[in-house]
Amino acid sequence: MYSETIELRGHIIDSLILPKVLDQILTHGANFKITEINIGKKRADQSFARLEVSAPTSEALDELILRLRQHGAEVAKRADAQLVKAPADGVFPLDFYVTTNQQTFVRIDGKEIEVHPAMMDSAIALDRKKRIARAVKFFDVCKDDEIVVSHEGIRVVPVQRSTSRTDLFQFINVIIDADEPKSAVIRGLARELQSARAANGKIAIVAGPAIVRTGAGRHLVRLIQSGYVDRLFAGNAFAVYDVERTLFGTSLGLNPDLAFARGGHENHMRAVNAIREAGGIASAVKKKVLTSGIMHACVAHNVDIVLIGSIRDDGPIPGVTTDAIEAQKIMRETLADVSHVLLLATIHHSLAVASMLAPTVKTVCVDIDPSAVEKAVEHQPLQSIGLVTDVEPFLRELADCVVEAESAGSARK
Amino acid sequence: MYSETIELRGHIIDSLILPKVLDQILTHGANFKITEINIGKKRADQSFARLEVSAPTSEALDELILRLRQHGAEVAKRADAQLVKAPADGVFPLDFYVTTNQQTFVRIDGKEIEVHPAMMDSAIALDRKKRIARAVKFFDVCKDDEIVVSHEGIRVVPVQRSTSRTDLFQFINVIIDADEPKSAVIRGLARELQSARAANGKIAIVAGPAIVRTGAGRHLVRLIQSGYVDRLFAGNAFAVYDVERTLFGTSLGLNPDLAFARGGHENHMRAVNAIREAGGIASAVKKKVLTSGIMHACVAHNVDIVLIGSIRDDGPIPGVTTDAIEAQKIMRETLADVSHVLLLATIHHSLAVASMLAPTVKTVCVDIDPSAVEKAVEHQPLQSIGLVTDVEPFLRELADCVVEAESAGSARK
Amino acid sequence: MYSETIELRGHIIDSLILPKVLDQILTHGANFKITEINIGKKRADQSFARLEVSAPTSEALDELILRLRQHGAEVAKRADAQLVKAPADGVFPLDFYVTTNQQTFVRIDGKEIEVHPAMMDSAIALDRKKRIARAVKFFDVCKDDEIVVSHEGIRVVPVQRSTSRTDLFQFINVIIDADEPKSAVIRGLARELQSARAANGKIAIVAGPAIVRTGAGRHLVRLIQSGYVDRLFAGNAFAVYDVERTLFGTSLGLNPDLAFARGGHENHMRAVNAIREAGGIASAVKKKVLTSGIMHACVAHNVDIVLIGSIRDDGPIPGVTTDAIEAQKIMRETLADVSHVLLLATIHHSLAVASMLAPTVKTVCVDIDPSAVEKAVEHQPLQSIGLVTDVEPFLRELADCVVEAESAGSARK
Amino acid sequence: MYSETIELRGHIIDSLILPKVLDQILTHGANFKITEINIGKKRADQSFARLEVSAPTSEALDELILRLRQHGAEVAKRADAQLVKAPADGVFPLDFYVTTNQQTFVRIDGKEIEVHPAMMDSAIALDRKKRIARAVKFFDVCKDDEIVVSHEGIRVVPVQRSTSRTDLFQFINVIIDADEPKSAVIRGLARELQSARAANGKIAIVAGPAIVRTGAGRHLVRLIQSGYVDRLFAGNAFAVYDVERTLFGTSLGLNPDLAFARGGHENHMRAVNAIREAGGIASAVKKKVLTSGIMHACVAHNVDIVLIGSIRDDGPIPGVTTDAIEAQKIMRETLADVSHVLLLATIHHSLAVASMLAPTVKTVCVDIDPSAVEKAVEHQPLQSIGLVTDVEPFLRELADCVVEAESAGSARK
Repeated sequence: MYSETIELRGHIIDSLILPKVLDQILTHGANFKITEINIGKKRADQSFARLEVSAPTSEALDELILRLRQHGAEVAKRADAQLVKAPADGVFPLDFYVTTNQQTFVRIDGKEIEVHPAMMDSAIALDRKKRIARAVKFFDVCKDDEIVVSHEGIRVVPVQRSTSRTDLFQFINVIIDADEPKSAVIRGLARELQSARAANGKIAIVAGPAIVRTGAGRHLVRLIQSGYVDRLFAGNAFAVYDVERTLFGTSLGLNPDLAFARGGHENHMRAVNAIREAGGIASAVKKKVLTSGIMHACVAHNVDIVLIGSIRDDGPIPGVTTDAIEAQKIMRETLADVSHVLLLATIHHSLAVASMLAPTVKTVCVDIDPSAVEKAVEHQPLQSIGLVTDVEPFLRELADCVVEAESAGSARK
Repeated sequence: MYSETIELRGHIIDSLILPKVLDQILTHGANFKITEINIGKKRADQSFARLEVSAPTSEALDELILRLRQHGAEVAKRADAQLVKAPADGVFPLDFYVTTNQQTFVRIDGKEIEVHPAMMDSAIALDRKKRIARAVKFFDVCKDDEIVVSHEGIRVVPVQRSTSRTDLFQFINVIIDADEPKSAVIRGLARELQSARAANGKIAIVAGPAIVRTGAGRHLVRLIQSGYVDRLFAGNAFAVYDVERTLFGTSLGLNPDLAFARGGHENHMRAVNAIREAGGIASAVKKKVLTSGIMHACVAHNVDIVLIGSIRDDGPIPGVTTDAIEAQKIMRETLADVSHVLLLATIHHSLAVASMLAPTVKTVCVDIDPSAVEKAVEHQPLQSIGLVTDVEPFLRELADCVVEAESAGSARK
Repeated sequence: MYSETIELRGHIIDSLILPKVLDQILTHGANFKITEINIGKKRADQSFARLEVSAPTSEALDELILRLRQHGAEVAKRADAQLVKAPADGVFPLDFYVTTNQQTFVRIDGKEIEVHPAMMDSAIALDRKKRIARAVKFFDVCKDDEIVVSHEGIRVVPVQRSTSRTDLFQFINVIIDADEPKSAVIRGLARELQSARAANGKIAIVAGPAIVRTGAGRHLVRLIQSGYVDRLFAGNAFAVYDVERTLFGTSLGLNPDLAFARGGHENHMRAVNAIREAGGIASAVKKKVLTSGIMHACVAHNVDIVLIGSIRDDGPIPGVTTDAIEAQKIMRETLADVSHVLLLATIHHSLAVASMLAPTVKTVCVDIDPSAVEKAVEHQPLQSIGLVTDVEPFLRELADCVVEAESAGSARK
Repeated sequence: MYSETIELRGHIIDSLILPKVLDQILTHGANFKITEINIGKKRADQSFARLEVSAPTSEALDELILRLRQHGAEVAKRADAQLVKAPADGVFPLDFYVTTNQQTFVRIDGKEIEVHPAMMDSAIALDRKKRIARAVKFFDVCKDDEIVVSHEGIRVVPVQRSTSRTDLFQFINVIIDADEPKSAVIRGLARELQSARAANGKIAIVAGPAIVRTGAGRHLVRLIQSGYVDRLFAGNAFAVYDVERTLFGTSLGLNPDLAFARGGHENHMRAVNAIREAGGIASAVKKKVLTSGIMHACVAHNVDIVLIGSIRDDGPIPGVTTDAIEAQKIMRETLADVSHVLLLATIHHSLAVASMLAPTVKTVCVDIDPSAVEKAVEHQPLQSIGLVTDVEPFLRELADCVVEAESAGSARK
């Protein structure tokens, strides 16, 4: 048997760190012995545990220790990280360490450096002189950059459970199902967003076309007008649906007041054409081609708009980033200072954004498909809420709560 | 090749009768020759077609003709129906004719008798003396009753498309998807229900527990109070959820104002117990044990309540019909004079009710699961609308429309 | 602040008992102080913890303690259970204790008695003389029976995690998604069922109509023939589909070899009629009306068949229990000695059966709908596996594994 | 009232042309009078109908006539198409005609020119000199190109129903649900693909990652080896999953033989890195880095590989087209000569490909999500089959059928 001693620190029981570590050990067919344990007496107290982990082969132990480190375990016998030079531009050395989205430290010359940003599925490049550790994507790496390999010298600090009792996000991967009440959560979310705004938090919305098609656009506009949206991420289709609705009053050619008539794709194409002719969304607002709607509200209220292209797009309209790698870079930059994200009815963009978030970003996902909601919140275990519902009533109720609170607030002054 | 001549009458093209007949012929690997066709010039005009259908074997032709009859084809060479006596109580003769839910006539002594009721998956029992044809279920048949066998002498008259331009239900199996706008349909439905009530139509609601759990109960109560509900079909669980909410303010032990706390099953069980102790819903209302909620509103406004048992029930409370065959009988009787049915968030009961409806009953199905909606509306091809959405906002908006219209109506007086 | 001291024993960390208890405390807005903790050093060792729990009101504390007891907490200050007489037949006293499906003890005269059976959503009736504690349903209770009220004197012992490394069921609510590999689990399940059979375990199948319709019936027959099925639970429709297929070669009138032809309901009705005429499934087998298929195999191999009625049934055929309460009783009895349950493509029956299982019954649920799978396995957190897949290939592969193993086994002899 | 006379030709009843036209007229609140009708007597005969359509406003009539043209109606009073010059590069004139995916003709100087390619959601650019009409996308159009506006002079010829009785694709939007038998369709599909290959048809596969993850890759490899795949469309993730499985034996770090262990993302990232280091898939095959798996089989058997980037990609590997517009061009070119398309478990790519297909391309969609299947086949109403099932057993059975037929074929020789 091969063994290693690991240590755990923090709220290791109620944040599920110790249970997850034990679960990993058992799942990998390994064994453990707890050599020391010291559980915090009160809620706010820290705990500590030291475990001896053993596995039948050295490889199995190594694989297991990697996994335990990702859940916050530290190896007792501290070593420096191992570095290997990148063999070519855009290529990492064999066995490079793959990051999680948790706060991560790397030990060099006996001292730890924090890796920035906290970005998953990257390698860690180290600048020894400047003592800087960067999480880098493939396109970021140049030949001879020093890259961390294996997982020695790595320490991960998982997000711990909030000890505040009033925090909407103090629970573990909460999902409100279709047949459960949502009003209380929506009211709580309105309060959370108000606090966020008061504290200069940045709120991002990732928005799917169903928002426009179901008629929920006007509720999103109210949120924008009240100052609750700092960034908007969407596809070309979302913007075009909004423009079609503003210019022609239709959605896929369908006037929403005619209950059933299935319209055609003509107005959608003409909306693309109109924005191309105007030179883009901002120009269209300036030239008064576009005088209302979500995109207009974004321009009027200085919301940063990130439009992302796809192989299903018509057009696209100017301003859409059609290259996927370029779009990833822009998304990452625009998400860097965000504190709250609402993922609304757009699984593809939601999963992309969710994989780019720092672990402390508070995340709400709304979708009518339960499995979409589940996947979107799984990366933020202690910071996310999912709601399985229609996006239209969600946005209506959220905007009602926010606007009500606003007018109550201004009345008070 | 074996062949037979069939005839079609009515709005055979825009009600899809002729296309469906041709589709069946082709699908069965048979062939056709149109020997006469006379298409109505205007929308309201009737059309006529005579086809010679041929198939490779006599059996294949017979099977095909049966299918074509179900789509409204008449066989040119008219014959009387064949009758065979039931061999025992509860048992039909071999090869008995199985009914559809369409208007059906059976030819005896050269004259046609209409079969009552228009009920699917039944046999036809004939009383020659009284010249009465009844659709009968297995439990209805007695030894020696005369039962129609094969399909000779049967004529089916499918529901034809409404020629009124203002009818919400003039389209073919309309389903509004999750990402489509629903407000216009809900407003149209409110108008339809108003007209129905004005014309003494009977409105039935088939209600699932999600209505209570999502907090939509108060909107259903508003519909009941405004006189828009004549019959309520639900399971034991629905009634118990409503009672739990009224007595304890919880749903599965969960106070809906505490966003996340997962409650227990205790209050659900205590709600059952309270109604058992009171002797049933109506007694509980009389004894002031139950003073608000959906069940209370039903009692107060003389809504007929049909509660159906299931193997998943706790209790049940008194008044629930636990025998499935007995429940079928009660449901059929209570549905007999209904003109409109709303199937709300309860797939099992909805499919049962949908299979018992006469073909002219206007049907609306609301569910968050698209495939549930599809199955629930397929039996009423020209009389149904499906909405894929959360039931809470649907009921909220419908109740708003109805109550608004009511107060506009009373203001006018 | 009101406070109470609780104690936890067993594998309280890796079976998630302590984390769940802390989660409940936090979720209820309460607080805790760990006054003693002793964590088992090795996997097989027991642990112990004593906590002081405090809440703002006496009611909140009481509600919280109830919840903690259900997760296995014992109150340090031990008291006898409180008993109140049932006020009437079929009615429990106010505030009766509602059972979980975990092993439960009740303290009387300073000594604990185990409650039998371990059945959820029941009350506990106590016979002081015989010192017997029974879990009773509403219909079981008679006036003046002594029933446990509140939760004093109750101790619950949750199922703990298996410490065996080779157990397929050692993990927590495992669900294999549609896009994950299933072969390894199916092979593991085949081995598990073999061991079960060797150890005289009883295997129950809960079977939905899709098994017949998709053509998986012959694989289920192979399992029956190999002796891997002791009990079969199904609805009337399942049996009728199987009979239709055996008698007419069709499924809803559809010959599965004609790819697309949509058949009619006639053969389904004739199948019902044939079994009614024969006097039931067993008679039909005896009279050689039924000579193959699943129902035939069950009769031939002495599988106990439990057929359950529903409001959607045609017929039903003789032998179907149409009364829901009667059916619950039969199901409970027939499930009492079962060690393994396979819930196959039938959500309604699966949820009913899942709620009747003792906590140690190993449960596998197969359905193409992920949310059905999730609900079906949630009551057996440490004893269940869910597979999101088509039931036909699942049964095919399972039968292949089992039959292969059988012939390997007999070759060896 | 404004009115216009339209004409319909072909199999206007069994291909649903006349019913759809009447449905559109009624849905738009318009009216009709059939002034002449001549129905083909036999299956292969053509039919003809002339209708006078009237609507309350000129705009409503125009909108209606546009819709009727898309269903194959010709306006009796023939006129030349109207042309307007494009105002700028990449911008169409106002009111440009938006194409469908049906065969389309445009009338110039009294003569009709066919538009190439038959591509939906494009404009029509006309070269008067060369008498060439091209369907053009936004990026294709240059300032002053002559573009068709309004819909005068346009004639659309919808795909008509096959009159062959043995064609698997002779039915209308067939979807085989999860609970329906699939074997007969899969066998039929195997025969269809054999005939296609014999007739030098080109078969394209659009493949999702679930194929690799569920272990279905080896069945896809068998299809490739038997020469049944000419083009493969997939995302970067698909290729990486395949490489990870080949290089490391894992899928998301998970060894499929360890039933439950949830692996990590490391091997996925290392697979990307390995292919980047090798310089791409083809190089990796050449350098023997990649010696088996799907991508290897594609290289070995000269399958054209089209890899498409997305914002969720890691890497990407060399050869992936990351620009969405560039990818659309490549996809359109690579699909131009394809006769059969299999859309397998990848909704995003499937919908993109489906929107690029000529109307005669035979399409099969396999997905476990019914609504994905529905959307993917709706553009090919008379040429598509959908199967709601797990992709692994589908591919296994299809490969079995094909390989069996192959060996039967070679045995016969």
